[in-house]
Amino acid sequence: MPKFDVLTIGNAIVDILARCDDAFLSDNAIIKGAMNLIDAERAELLYSKMGPAVEASGGSAGNTAAGIASLGGKAAYFGKVAEDQLGGIFQHDIRSLGVHYQTRPEGVAPPTARSMIFVTPDGERSMNTYLGACVELGPEHVETDVVAESKVTYFEGYLWDPPRAKDAIREAARIAHENGREVAMTLSDPFCVGRYRAEFLDLMRSGTVDIVFANRQEVLSLYETEDFDAALGQLAKDCKLGAVTLSEEGAVIVRGTEKVPVPATEIEELVDTTGAGDLFAAGFLFGYTAGRSLEDCGRLGCLSAGIVIQQIGPRPAVSLKHAAAEAGLI
Amino acid sequence: MPKFDVLTIGNAIVDILARCDDAFLSDNAIIKGAMNLIDAERAELLYSKMGPAVEASGGSAGNTAAGIASLGGKAAYFGKVAEDQLGGIFQHDIRSLGVHYQTRPEGVAPPTARSMIFVTPDGERSMNTYLGACVELGPEHVETDVVAESKVTYFEGYLWDPPRAKDAIREAARIAHENGREVAMTLSDPFCVGRYRAEFLDLMRSGTVDIVFANRQEVLSLYETEDFDAALGQLAKDCKLGAVTLSEEGAVIVRGTEKVPVPATEIEELVDTTGAGDLFAAGFLFGYTAGRSLEDCGRLGCLSAGIVIQQIGPRPAVSLKHAAAEAGLI
Repeated sequence: MPKFDVLTIGNAIVDILARCDDAFLSDNAIIKGAMNLIDAERAELLYSKMGPAVEASGGSAGNTAAGIASLGGKAAYFGKVAEDQLGGIFQHDIRSLGVHYQTRPEGVAPPTARSMIFVTPDGERSMNTYLGACVELGPEHVETDVVAESKVTYFEGYLWDPPRAKDAIREAARIAHENGREVAMTLSDPFCVGRYRAEFLDLMRSGTVDIVFANRQEVLSLYETEDFDAALGQLAKDCKLGAVTLSEEGAVIVRGTEKVPVPATEIEELVDTTGAGDLFAAGFLFGYTAGRSLEDCGRLGCLSAGIVIQQIGPRPAVSLKHAAAEAGLI
Repeated sequence: MPKFDVLTIGNAIVDILARCDDAFLSDNAIIKGAMNLIDAERAELLYSKMGPAVEASGGSAGNTAAGIASLGGKAAYFGKVAEDQLGGIFQHDIRSLGVHYQTRPEGVAPPTARSMIFVTPDGERSMNTYLGACVELGPEHVETDVVAESKVTYFEGYLWDPPRAKDAIREAARIAHENGREVAMTLSDPFCVGRYRAEFLDLMRSGTVDIVFANRQEVLSLYETEDFDAALGQLAKDCKLGAVTLSEEGAVIVRGTEKVPVPATEIEELVDTTGAGDLFAAGFLFGYTAGRSLEDCGRLGCLSAGIVIQQIGPRPAVSLKHAAAEAGLI
């Protein structure tokens, strides 16, 4: 029996969250709904313009690991922080959920990554990420035994932004497959897909990646089309299993010729979409590694995403295990 | 016309907030509802036992300054952080509200203060505060011109915990009174009152302090009695103006023989009492420095407190000015 259900690998980031109006985004040339990469200088400038904020551990794959642990799954995480206060916060939050996290911080420069996340009145989040210590992640941070002992190794497309993380991913995927495990990725962001389209397609078509998570915009960007059905059909050919989130329309899962629609969870109030995709992946992979049906996996994903978008911040403040039990899903 | 409505002085703290059950408090010898002072070693131990948390700027008087600014008042703040990431967060959050805050951080040790705040299912908060850089606050941090230009200088009773802050307060009170201004304090916490009862009474009876904020438990602790009416009568004699919060019963204001009851604001759900007293003081002092009636001051206080207890964290996430306008109070 493998030790871990899911290992996730990603940029280890502390989120700095504040509300703003739409004019703030356009005045500051922030692409709404996207992950905007910024350097240290722009980080300082934007922070000086940001209103009072709250801080919470984030990072796409970190949020997914946290979600799996909250559901009662066994999770591990690789990601790089610095030896500073934000790094300490990141380590604390993920470990306190029982997630295996042993990537060693080395020094204080560059500092732990942070993402300034502006939440507009419609609940949409626009991220501005300074990668900091994440640029140091490389193959030397791959814990071979952890990869070998994880049913699924999952990583962010965002890892193509720092210089050497992709080498870590290729190494982890090799170890995973050697041990008969599966490899999953999220396409992360439509602009990220734009930056690395050819490499992402190669990861899928070469069999480096088995399972792909995406939202509608990311799949359309991947295949450079406006025809969603065509893109979904292509995705089904390019990977073994695809899970595509569709906001208020729920999700659709494709595996070969199978196509499973999943309804969205009803929500009372959309507060902040931060973490929605990450938590969908958490719920889905929790179900998947427990051997559940694709529909159940999708429902667990939609439930988890539905909870995180009704609060401020990227990781659920309530027990997902409790919520899933109440919903009759576990 | 003075430049500032209110100057507040206090321990500059970043809050680390997490939920827990009541058993966690008793298992870890945390006094429920109180401010528990802890050293660096216990801070590390408690953090290792704490679940995933979120961070937000706090500190009692800092929260009050933030509340006054959110109401549209002109506020200033004195308090000491270190040159570290948490210090940067504290500075950012208070300055981004337009509060004058120029207390210079010096070095990285001791680090910026933090308070681990455990919120139980009943919404009560139990604080565990490591004072860090706050122990360095002294008379040299009193900006004479700011005190002289503030209608009211307000400080925390908590400032009697660090060694030299009380000297800063006595100096600030002297400057304030020399310039015809008023001085206010909050009794902060019933256990804090227990530690410094004689000194607090002396501050009031010597006329160093004109206005006193407290809750029921603090007033009872101050006069070592269970008879609230007797304690309130004594408070009215010991200071020029007293404002006592009574949780769901609102507040009562005393000035000489005047006694003004103020109803609590109706709330939908009590989430987290962190910041309730601080925001009451903010609303009250905003009204007071605008020349409003004691009842209006009390209503502004109850409104501000009522908003902050319906969210996680010590400073309101919404504009208090907007809320007060909607309630017809400004």
